[in-house]
Amino acid sequence: MGLTMAELHPQLQKDCLLIGRFTLCRLLLMRDANYPWFILVPDRENISEIFHLSGEDQLQLLRESSRLSAVLVERFHADKLNIAALGNVVPQLHVHHVVRYRDDPAWPAPVWGHVPAQPYTPEGLSDVLDTLRPGLLDNFELFPEKYST
Amino acid sequence: MGLTMAELHPQLQKDCLLIGRFTLCRLLLMRDANYPWFILVPDRENISEIFHLSGEDQLQLLRESSRLSAVLVERFHADKLNIAALGNVVPQLHVHHVVRYRDDPAWPAPVWGHVPAQPYTPEGLSDVLDTLRPGLLDNFELFPEKYST
Repeated sequence: MGLTMAELHPQLQKDCLLIGRFTLCRLLLMRDANYPWFILVPDRENISEIFHLSGEDQLQLLRESSRLSAVLVERFHADKLNIAALGNVVPQLHVHHVVRYRDDPAWPAPVWGHVPAQPYTPEGLSDVLDTLRPGLLDNFELFPEKYST
Repeated sequence: MGLTMAELHPQLQKDCLLIGRFTLCRLLLMRDANYPWFILVPDRENISEIFHLSGEDQLQLLRESSRLSAVLVERFHADKLNIAALGNVVPQLHVHHVVRYRDDPAWPAPVWGHVPAQPYTPEGLSDVLDTLRPGLLDNFELFPEKYST
């Protein structure tokens, strides 16, 4: 990479795996096997709201969000996507993209605080990444490192 | 208006007041005095995900969302804004914009399902609309009708 990146908030580092990056955002996977749950984090310092980003960065976030959304719905056969920028606990701007199924543990409620996070098995983690990978080609780098659950 | 508008989902009609419109979206106020809680509904038929909108409509939604966000944070002195497109119950695309305070009934949890909705008093409703109004001038119409709580 060689680029300087804004530091990830410690809570995001703890709760998530850093799995790749688009032009503006890093892509994280939430360590919760209950749902395919991804997070985009714009690589900018001291931004807590989408409208605080420059106009160009807002547009790029939209592009990356919609690109990711299309891939998630298609590749994971989502019944619905939940997209949210909350940030009450972690002030660093981050945008949740959660694949929802009618038979998931929280449906139809939002996922936050519903059931405890379920750690991934190594196989479960590989499955998620293998499912995601073929959809993300343009302007996207999925990191090749090995991940530990 | 004279324009044909997509029909609002019955649940949105029940839970919300229609208070105005931008170029693309209608602006609703959730009938819940616990939080200043607004919803943007793009005036398009049969759209359930942001990425299903045309590129131009996505950009316009972003513009309207960021304009509303800036007004909400400034006029309501928000500690944080929560923006979310969920739609597990109501499939018609709608984007929540919830003003959050560190002393609100759900903080720091998301608002959904936390405490029962609190009906507005007539004075409370007037206060919210009077607070919002001065910030929303460009390309925005706040309906002049009288609202009942």
